[in-house]
Amino acid sequence: MVPTLVDIRGAAERIRPYAHRTPVWTCASLDLQVGAQVFLKCENLQRVGAFKFRGACNAVFALGDREAARGVVAHSSGNHAQALALAAQLRGVAAHIVMPSNAPAVKKAAVAGYGARITTCEPTLAAREAAQARVVAATGATIIHPYNDYRVIAGQGTAALELLEDVPDLDVILAPVGGGGLLSGTAIAARELCPGIRVIGAEPEQADDAFRSLAAGRILPSLDPHTIADGLLTGLGELTFPIIQERVERIVTVSEAGIVAAMQFVWERAKLIIEPSAAVPVGLLWERKLDLAGLRVGVILSGGNVDLEQLPWQEPY
Amino acid sequence: MVPTLVDIRGAAERIRPYAHRTPVWTCASLDLQVGAQVFLKCENLQRVGAFKFRGACNAVFALGDREAARGVVAHSSGNHAQALALAAQLRGVAAHIVMPSNAPAVKKAAVAGYGARITTCEPTLAAREAAQARVVAATGATIIHPYNDYRVIAGQGTAALELLEDVPDLDVILAPVGGGGLLSGTAIAARELCPGIRVIGAEPEQADDAFRSLAAGRILPSLDPHTIADGLLTGLGELTFPIIQERVERIVTVSEAGIVAAMQFVWERAKLIIEPSAAVPVGLLWERKLDLAGLRVGVILSGGNVDLEQLPWQEPY
Repeated sequence: MVPTLVDIRGAAERIRPYAHRTPVWTCASLDLQVGAQVFLKCENLQRVGAFKFRGACNAVFALGDREAARGVVAHSSGNHAQALALAAQLRGVAAHIVMPSNAPAVKKAAVAGYGARITTCEPTLAAREAAQARVVAATGATIIHPYNDYRVIAGQGTAALELLEDVPDLDVILAPVGGGGLLSGTAIAARELCPGIRVIGAEPEQADDAFRSLAAGRILPSLDPHTIADGLLTGLGELTFPIIQERVERIVTVSEAGIVAAMQFVWERAKLIIEPSAAVPVGLLWERKLDLAGLRVGVILSGGNVDLEQLPWQEPY
Repeated sequence: MVPTLVDIRGAAERIRPYAHRTPVWTCASLDLQVGAQVFLKCENLQRVGAFKFRGACNAVFALGDREAARGVVAHSSGNHAQALALAAQLRGVAAHIVMPSNAPAVKKAAVAGYGARITTCEPTLAAREAAQARVVAATGATIIHPYNDYRVIAGQGTAALELLEDVPDLDVILAPVGGGGLLSGTAIAARELCPGIRVIGAEPEQADDAFRSLAAGRILPSLDPHTIADGLLTGLGELTFPIIQERVERIVTVSEAGIVAAMQFVWERAKLIIEPSAAVPVGLLWERKLDLAGLRVGVILSGGNVDLEQLPWQEPY
């Protein structure tokens, strides 16, 4: 069943011993720049450097003991891989992570560092799913999907819950949208806690499948996305799409230049390391795509995992 | 008179409407790396990106109305310049900042952005002091020294006050030492609040005048310092030295490699942008120069102003 605020509160309780309650931060120069009062929910400071730990942790700790003992599995080369690996390590069960052969060595090392067992496969979706199915067949591990899973969605919603506990009178909440786990969890929490609040998704122009899906009224695939916001390449899931359709006011797209400019500003002025995906909702404000003048705007800064050797304002990408 | 905890509490009250109460942050991977429980007081998230705002703000708002109306002046190309400019702007009085002709354009722009009047001079101490004296003669502005001023010292002590309010049971506090304003304010606050606490200064090996001064029992100048921690080039002041001598357990020096490694780790794992000077006390932990195993260690992360175009792990310096 679609999670409710009750489930999100349950998730918050479940993950409390393991997850950070991240700070909500403000930056006067950002407010001046974008003409709104911005409250940054710093999930870049979450464990493993991303909100993904919330959903993975909730899913892993929601398993029954016998189920958990068989381990968990996912195919991911992104933040979900590290999040699931750490959550499983904290519960003391095995995590199997299927990673494509072209995943960066640093990401494999991070996942291995949390004690996960890595299976390498060809870098295609079919190969990843086949490898995952083999792990399930061999071990009985439970698949924890990065977003198309109600336990994960409820976990992701805990970020907005905390944000609204700290700043109850927001007018708007912005979150990036890739698969839709964060945005759908945010929308459930926010709209149930504060029925008048506006929830808006931010998506790269060059990976605008969620924008097009909402317009079409059905899930459209993410075709040849090309964006620096590499956490937002995937399309919506069957579970996340209807939640977003019902509870999110709209999706707004942001240019690559807007994403990079917003990211650089947050680094320079707010002193927070955020990844390009987290800069997308800030870019929405930056480009003034919507009239949010003077409003109190919450932004979920989704993560901070970025290659410090190759920054977008230094290197052509 | 040397400030006491009462003065630091007064400073905290005075700057409260203007300064951020910065978060205290922890990072499990840092704790694992250095073998202690580390509490990071995030002054990189302070206004203007550095603790310096605390001291400048306290000094400016401690002035009488008539004195304040004549403005304030300092010679600085660093964080104190921006801090004083913003504090004066908030009080609605003039700030005159003497900057050397070789100061980076970005720093001049930042100071000008806070409404300060910039006087450019030759890049020598004599020229800077002469230019400052001319401003005083012409305007009657009050000199706000970056560290050799009791109002500034009391302001800088408010960071440790807040840290100890949030985490009362620290065993040790580490702070970087340049001119000694932060370290002396920290030592007064910490030792009066928690008489058993150890206060330790961290200094670059290649700018070790404070270490040598404590050993010699008198202020030795900072001769030809060469360190990436460009906030720590100056020598101790006549007001800061005796406070440090009396209340600081010791000064420990840190290698350039340790400073850079600690800085990179904080960026990568704690997702906080810190400047090299702020990385010096983290480098002390990193290099395990002292046996602090298992202790609860507070670290004042002094600032986050760094050129994002030229990071030390990318460029030879």
